[in-house]
Amino acid sequence: MSAYADLEKRFRRLSGLAGAEGVLHWDWAVMMPPGGAEARGEQLAVLSGIAHELITAPDLGDLLDQANADSDQLDIWQRANLTEMRRRWAHATAIDADLVEALTKASTECEMTWRDAREANDFKMVEPKLTRLLALVRQKADAKSAVLGLSPYDALLDSYDPGTKGARVDQIFDELRQDLPDLLARVLERQAEKPAPQKLVGDITPENQRRLGERLMEVIGFDTNFGRLDVSHHPFTAGVPDDIRITTRYKDGDFVESLMAVSHETGHALYERGLPKDWRGQPVGEAGGMSLHESQSLLMEMQACRSEEFISFIAPLIRDAFSGEGVTWDFENLHRTYRRVEAGLIRVEADEVTYPAHVLMRTDLERAMIAGDLRVADLPGAWADGLKALLGVMVPNDRDGCMQDIHWYGGDFGYFPTYTLGALAAAQLFAAAHASDDSIAAGLGNGNFKPLMAWLATNVHGFGARLGLDDLLTEATGAPLSTAAYKAHIEARYLS
Amino acid sequence: MSAYADLEKRFRRLSGLAGAEGVLHWDWAVMMPPGGAEARGEQLAVLSGIAHELITAPDLGDLLDQANADSDQLDIWQRANLTEMRRRWAHATAIDADLVEALTKASTECEMTWRDAREANDFKMVEPKLTRLLALVRQKADAKSAVLGLSPYDALLDSYDPGTKGARVDQIFDELRQDLPDLLARVLERQAEKPAPQKLVGDITPENQRRLGERLMEVIGFDTNFGRLDVSHHPFTAGVPDDIRITTRYKDGDFVESLMAVSHETGHALYERGLPKDWRGQPVGEAGGMSLHESQSLLMEMQACRSEEFISFIAPLIRDAFSGEGVTWDFENLHRTYRRVEAGLIRVEADEVTYPAHVLMRTDLERAMIAGDLRVADLPGAWADGLKALLGVMVPNDRDGCMQDIHWYGGDFGYFPTYTLGALAAAQLFAAAHASDDSIAAGLGNGNFKPLMAWLATNVHGFGARLGLDDLLTEATGAPLSTAAYKAHIEARYLS
Repeated sequence: MSAYADLEKRFRRLSGLAGAEGVLHWDWAVMMPPGGAEARGEQLAVLSGIAHELITAPDLGDLLDQANADSDQLDIWQRANLTEMRRRWAHATAIDADLVEALTKASTECEMTWRDAREANDFKMVEPKLTRLLALVRQKADAKSAVLGLSPYDALLDSYDPGTKGARVDQIFDELRQDLPDLLARVLERQAEKPAPQKLVGDITPENQRRLGERLMEVIGFDTNFGRLDVSHHPFTAGVPDDIRITTRYKDGDFVESLMAVSHETGHALYERGLPKDWRGQPVGEAGGMSLHESQSLLMEMQACRSEEFISFIAPLIRDAFSGEGVTWDFENLHRTYRRVEAGLIRVEADEVTYPAHVLMRTDLERAMIAGDLRVADLPGAWADGLKALLGVMVPNDRDGCMQDIHWYGGDFGYFPTYTLGALAAAQLFAAAHASDDSIAAGLGNGNFKPLMAWLATNVHGFGARLGLDDLLTEATGAPLSTAAYKAHIEARYLS
Repeated sequence: MSAYADLEKRFRRLSGLAGAEGVLHWDWAVMMPPGGAEARGEQLAVLSGIAHELITAPDLGDLLDQANADSDQLDIWQRANLTEMRRRWAHATAIDADLVEALTKASTECEMTWRDAREANDFKMVEPKLTRLLALVRQKADAKSAVLGLSPYDALLDSYDPGTKGARVDQIFDELRQDLPDLLARVLERQAEKPAPQKLVGDITPENQRRLGERLMEVIGFDTNFGRLDVSHHPFTAGVPDDIRITTRYKDGDFVESLMAVSHETGHALYERGLPKDWRGQPVGEAGGMSLHESQSLLMEMQACRSEEFISFIAPLIRDAFSGEGVTWDFENLHRTYRRVEAGLIRVEADEVTYPAHVLMRTDLERAMIAGDLRVADLPGAWADGLKALLGVMVPNDRDGCMQDIHWYGGDFGYFPTYTLGALAAAQLFAAAHASDDSIAAGLGNGNFKPLMAWLATNVHGFGARLGLDDLLTEATGAPLSTAAYKAHIEARYLS
């Protein structure tokens, strides 16, 4: 067996383990009775421990070198696969088993405490645990930095979004920082000239929302032979390409959030479904990073499903689903409901105009924490200052301030930028798709997503992890990522 | 670290892997969309491959020897744990990796073909696959026989029911073979003197059945903080002690089967819940074999939940659950409905009087197949002859004949005897429980299972795998397994 073939065999095994972990996590969030948490934690620790042993096996570095030496016998996909294997191996071997274990323990403890602290609105409760966790994350970042030849923050970022650097994020975020306040002010001014959306009253039960959600998935093109929709505390997508699990949550009497979550997660799901079939079970057959993943969910949610064309199509379906009556259920009011812009406290509730401000602030704060320039004790104040500066919003308490997101309390630093990189990529990809095929917009108006999905299959999904964010955008849209399409989209949707 | 401590660590890891496999199997049967089968098969193959590597690690035999040499430092539980570790190791190392792989492949293929062949009622379709699979199972039995010092069939039996031998099964089954025909004839004669049960008509929807099933679980003592009830094609119990998943299935308009399946699976579940807490994650902390497991489900289903006392208690709850009206919903008719005896074709639909005949016949056939005395091609005829001889029933087709059960087609030979050993043990344990505590029967009449569960906790559940079938029965009832209590039970329930 050649070194490369041996590597494929090993990474196929790792993919099986990762798939198993995915089912265990999904089940935890969706099905598991509360008493099962401890045993499930042990099962997951066993699986991740074995996966870590497999990828840090003493001979794996040699195999990578050997395969690299023979890489002239590999095709473009195999070479990209080998590159992605090496990246994963470098991340895994950069930190020793003791640090892995300490990080797992500290994240679990901090996340558990965070739940209580958030509930009690008491940041002091979680401060020591987050301080300890941050120290370990910085250790990890330093260790990876040395091995990967990246700055500590870039080393963290690279594990979520291969190849994306902090300097590139700065370049893009600085533009947003400059342009967003004016854009937001203009949008709000224009919005104030129009009537506010009126509350929708009807038979908006969870069951009716579920049925409409499943109809929406079907319209977009989700085949329930290969996945399912369930309920969880926070919406998410999990699973493998032929078995994709998406979730949403239902508020009795309000369908707006649940339905948009379904469109968002269906975007993630269809990306997974469209990944290259020939490369299933190999690193290059997986998604090309979290920014691209988020671009696919936001393209579906923000670009396609809030387009005028699609809202015209879905408005009568929504009215029927909830036995809605009267003028509030017409296109105009639905349109306003789905496009309300408002500077607020909570990231996950933010609209597409104010959302980037939340991410900019978090990115600043986490970079300062990783650099050692911001202490955990000073986080609540820095958060409040940040939100006031960027959105003019006062933070009334830490529960809705620096304790609102799970990421840092679970040890995830370097993830936040991918949300906004994804939003920008979504706008850029959608614009390119539109420009290349007239039938896409027309299709959305008829509930026919096939033209859009065909474009995405060729230009995004089918690449797997072969191309990173900028390379894929260059290939698909003719230019690397920029803020231009996003700003043009906001102008067109809210100011034209 | 001592050799014994090292072994505990390794077997804890194996337990985590087995727990993960359990979730994956449950999800497959209950939640997974059909398209996920191939990926799930790969995930399970990876996990079982890793588990096989861990238990056949080259140094594990030495560790077992070393721990054995130091066994004077171990307490009774640790020694029993060590014995069970060695048994598992011996089973795993007896067959080489190539045979394991060939068996996995051949069972999967045969089982898949069986589904189609059964559907098409065409035994010829599956005959070659079953022939090939049987050859491999015989190879496995021979290999285990050599290592374990057991006959080939006993070596298979031992993997489901540690320590139980074919000669012991013969002894017990020969008694049944002798006594059952007369017992059945007398039961049917007596039954013919009474009115037949009348069909129950009411609002017997799946949803109402589910609600009543959950109520029944609650009455028996199942805490839904530590488990859940779902639907699957065949009822089963899976999971770990703090996260037990049971399933049933609903026939619209007929609750008898679904409700009894719930009581049966709840019996399995409470055995798991009651296993010794101090030994979680270790072999000795698991159940003491499949016969004991079945004794706990049948004790609940056949002994407790079909007792006069309990039917009196549950009759009004059943009537209310289905908005039943009139005399058919009274105790008398329910009682008759739940105790109908009838010689039939299908094992899983059989009553407690005719069930053993199905098992006797299957045990004869599988022993002959393993011994090389019965060819697969001759199975349909042997099946038809067997059922006619034992129950006087004619087999109209192979679908409802030798293709009705999945076991052999999935490679499980040596499992069938445990159903009837379990039924006999259930009767013997229930009689001993009754004799030792008057409040048990009284409790069943009030829907109070606490006295019964307390007796089972002390006398069965708490032993884990420390005692095998006969040793546990001797400890709990004063005598090893016999047919006496079962026959007395049938006499008392159907002939007194």
